[in-house]
Amino acid sequence: MLKHNSYFEGAVQSVGFERNGLPASVGVILPGQYHFGTAKAERMTVTSGLLQADIAGSGWVSYPAGTSFEVAANSGFDVRAVGGPAAYLCEYLGA
Amino acid sequence: MLKHNSYFEGAVQSVGFERNGLPASVGVILPGQYHFGTAKAERMTVTSGLLQADIAGSGWVSYPAGTSFEVAANSGFDVRAVGGPAAYLCEYLGA
Repeated sequence: MLKHNSYFEGAVQSVGFERNGLPASVGVILPGQYHFGTAKAERMTVTSGLLQADIAGSGWVSYPAGTSFEVAANSGFDVRAVGGPAAYLCEYLGA
Repeated sequence: MLKHNSYFEGAVQSVGFERNGLPASVGVILPGQYHFGTAKAERMTVTSGLLQADIAGSGWVSYPAGTSFEVAANSGFDVRAVGGPAAYLCEYLGA
């Protein structure tokens, strides 16, 4: 089953699914800066546009389409889409 | 602005956005076979899982994650997700 998720008054929206028993989602982030907490470890792969992420306060790094970053469980990251909306694939790394 | 789209009773869902004046979307396709018509030319890039597509009746071809196919305007394609849900990025190639 698929699930539509909307965050930050619709500025971040995704469609959640499950592969091999692990949850995942694809989504889009409008220009702006947002904070996400992580209950589980996850990998964010940028599929269109440019994201910048500050993972657990370690500083801003640019992630253009085709690159990815991972975030530990029980942590969080700030993320911003630059120059237009950015699309991503989010894969959770543990059940 | 982002827009949530749902097709085939929720079996295909996407989030639409716009980059550089062209519409695009990211979405997920549940296992099953679906037909989409195209008013405009588009490129489908598989970002997770495996899609098979029959573009304008030319025969079934497999497109694993990381590959893409293009469909002409005023045409259409049959698509099926194999072995689980598949995620895609759809980019329209003309305004």
